[in-house]
Amino acid sequence: MSSIYEERRAQLKAYLTNNDIGTAMISSPANVYYYTGFNSDPHERFMALVIDTNADETVLFVPALDKDAAIQDSDIAKIIPISDQEEPFEVVKNTIDSIAKSVGIEAKVLSYYRYNSLLTFFPQVEVVDVQPFINTQRMKKSKEEIAHLRKAIEIIEKVLAEGIKKVEIGMTEAELTAELEFLMRKFGADAPSFSTIVLTGEKAALPHGSPGERKIQKGDYLLIDFGVVKDGYCSDTTRTFIVGEASDEQKKIYDIVRKSNQAGINAVQAGVPLKTFDIAARNVISDNGYGEYFNNRVGHGLGIEVHEEPSVHQNNEQIAEAGLVFTIEPGIYIPGHGGVRIEDTVYINEEGKVEVLSSFPRELQVL
Amino acid sequence: MSSIYEERRAQLKAYLTNNDIGTAMISSPANVYYYTGFNSDPHERFMALVIDTNADETVLFVPALDKDAAIQDSDIAKIIPISDQEEPFEVVKNTIDSIAKSVGIEAKVLSYYRYNSLLTFFPQVEVVDVQPFINTQRMKKSKEEIAHLRKAIEIIEKVLAEGIKKVEIGMTEAELTAELEFLMRKFGADAPSFSTIVLTGEKAALPHGSPGERKIQKGDYLLIDFGVVKDGYCSDTTRTFIVGEASDEQKKIYDIVRKSNQAGINAVQAGVPLKTFDIAARNVISDNGYGEYFNNRVGHGLGIEVHEEPSVHQNNEQIAEAGLVFTIEPGIYIPGHGGVRIEDTVYINEEGKVEVLSSFPRELQVL
Repeated sequence: MSSIYEERRAQLKAYLTNNDIGTAMISSPANVYYYTGFNSDPHERFMALVIDTNADETVLFVPALDKDAAIQDSDIAKIIPISDQEEPFEVVKNTIDSIAKSVGIEAKVLSYYRYNSLLTFFPQVEVVDVQPFINTQRMKKSKEEIAHLRKAIEIIEKVLAEGIKKVEIGMTEAELTAELEFLMRKFGADAPSFSTIVLTGEKAALPHGSPGERKIQKGDYLLIDFGVVKDGYCSDTTRTFIVGEASDEQKKIYDIVRKSNQAGINAVQAGVPLKTFDIAARNVISDNGYGEYFNNRVGHGLGIEVHEEPSVHQNNEQIAEAGLVFTIEPGIYIPGHGGVRIEDTVYINEEGKVEVLSSFPRELQVL
Repeated sequence: MSSIYEERRAQLKAYLTNNDIGTAMISSPANVYYYTGFNSDPHERFMALVIDTNADETVLFVPALDKDAAIQDSDIAKIIPISDQEEPFEVVKNTIDSIAKSVGIEAKVLSYYRYNSLLTFFPQVEVVDVQPFINTQRMKKSKEEIAHLRKAIEIIEKVLAEGIKKVEIGMTEAELTAELEFLMRKFGADAPSFSTIVLTGEKAALPHGSPGERKIQKGDYLLIDFGVVKDGYCSDTTRTFIVGEASDEQKKIYDIVRKSNQAGINAVQAGVPLKTFDIAARNVISDNGYGEYFNNRVGHGLGIEVHEEPSVHQNNEQIAEAGLVFTIEPGIYIPGHGGVRIEDTVYINEEGKVEVLSSFPRELQVL
C-alpha cells in the first residue's frame, strides 16, 4: 500500500509529465512535508525534494544535521545530507545524473539567489513555476487533513475556554499571552501556529499588533487571535471580548462584526466565486457605515501553513470547490478606539456545503 | 538629531551612490526593521522600503492592515498601504516617479516570483544584490544593539535557571517546553526567538528535533536549546543536563564538548579568519575520537535574526572583526545514544577581544 506522500508525489509527477517538466525541485518546507512526511524548518540552509520524471528518481536533500530526522520521518529512500561548507547545487549536480531542461520550481519560494545558483550549475535549465499546481493540490484537503485541522481547532478552543478564565483587570497583554501559550502546550499543541496576538483597549484596532505591557482595564476590548500547530496542521481563531462592562458603541460594533461573520459563513458553498464570501461579509459592515474600518480580506486558506491558498478577497473570481478550508474573519478596526474581529474556520465538504470547523461561541462575552 | 534608523539608511545610501545603484528595494522584514524601526512580519504580503537616491525619496510600502502600526513605529514620513486586492508593483509604479535602471535587492529574500513582477512593471530594470552590503552593515553591532542582545540573553538565562527547577522524572518534553515558554513571557520576552528545543535521552542526538511526548527518565540527557526575542533582538542558548545520575560515558562526552566550547571561545579575536574558531572547537572533538559526531558548523551570527551573518564554519576565510556577535555551539550527537551541545554567545568588542555575553554555568549539572 502506498503512503499518502507517495500518492501526492504521484499526482505531482503526473502533472509534471503532462506538462513536459522533466524535473521538479521543491524547497518550501511546507511542501517538502506535504510530499515526504518530513516536517522541518531548515532556516537559511538548503532543503529540497528533487523529483526527476525521466530517470524516475526521487531524492531528498537536507542539511547534514537533519539527516537522521529526515530518515526517521520521511518515506524517501534516497536522502542526501548537505553540510554547511558545501555548495548545495554542487551536491545536487553530483547526485542527480541528469537534470531536465525544464525544471519545476516554486516561484514564490525560490529566491533570486538560489535561482542564480541553479543556473550557474545547470546553465541549460529553464525554470517553470509549479507552485500554482502544488497550491491547488494542497488546497483540496483530504479527510485525514480535515481530521488534523479539527484537532488543531479543538486544542485552541480548549485553550480559549480555559484562558479567558484567567483574565483579570491589571494583567498585561504579555502575561495573558504567557498563560495562553502555556495552555497550548498543556493541551497537546506542538507549537503556536503564529505569534499569539493579545490586544487590549485601543490596541485592538491594530490587526497585527503584538502583545505588550498594556494592562487590561475595565471597559477594554480584548482581542485574542491565535492558533496552534498539531501534527503539522494549523488552527487560527479570533474572538474579541469586552472586559467588565460593554458600552453601547462596543455592543453595536460587536453585533455588526458578528452579523458580518455569519453572513460570510452563510455565503460559503462550492460553485461560486470566492469573492462572494468576502462581499457578503463586507456588505454587512459597509451597510452599517463602518466600511472604511474593514480594510483587509475576509479570509485565507489554512492547513500545513497558517496562511495558504485560497485568498478570500473581494476581487477573487476563482470558483470555490469541495475540499477548501479557509477562515472567515471580518473585523472593524477604529484607530484610537479599538476593534473587533471574529474569526472562524470553514470547510467546503464533499457535498459542496459549508461546515464550520470552529465552534467557540460567537455571542458577545463580557469577562 | 537623526535617529539610528536614519543613520543606517544614510550608510546604505552612501553605498548605493558609490556603486551607481539608483534605487534600493528592501523587503526582508528584519532589514525593514533595521532601517525603519518598524518590526513586522507581513507573511506572504508585500512589504518594502524603497530608497531612491536620485530623487532622494524614501517610501515604506506596507500591507494595508499594518499601516497604523507602521506610522506609529517607523520614522519614515511616506508610508503607502497596499490592500490585498492590489498588485504591489503597480502601487509602487504609481507612487515612485522614476525608478533607476539599477535596483538594489536582497537576492536571498526576493523571490523569483517577485523578481518577475518587478520586471513586468519595470522592464528596464537590472537588479543588483545589495544583501551582502546589508549583512555586513548589520553584522557589526552597535553598543545599543549589544545592550539589546545582553537583555535577551539575560532573560533566557533567568528562564533556564528557573526552568530546570521544574524538571521531574516522568515529565514530557512538551510539558517542560510549556513551562520554559511560560517563563520566557513572565520574564519579559516578546516571544521565543525560534521553536524551543527540549530533547531527552537518545532524542538529544537530533540537533533540530522537536519536543514531544517522550517522558524524562533517570539517566537521560536533557538538551535545551532556546532563545527569546526582546525589543527586536534574539538570544539563542543551549545547555545539556543529565537527569538523575550521569554515566561515565555521558561525563566523558560532556567534558569533551565543554572543552571544545572553551577552545572555540578562547580562539575568538579580531584579525583572524572565522574558520579558526570552528577548527579550534572541532579539533578538540576530533582529537578525542568523536569527529564524525559533530557534523555542523560551530556557530552563526545573531542579532535581529536568530541566524544571521557571519557563518562560523571550517571553510570560512572571512576575517573576524570588531562588532561581530555569534554563537559557539559545538556538539556531539550519537544516533541512538544521545547528544550534548553547549552554546554560548560571543562578541568581539572594540578592542578586538572576545566578550562572552552568555554566563550560564557550563559545568555538568546533574538534575
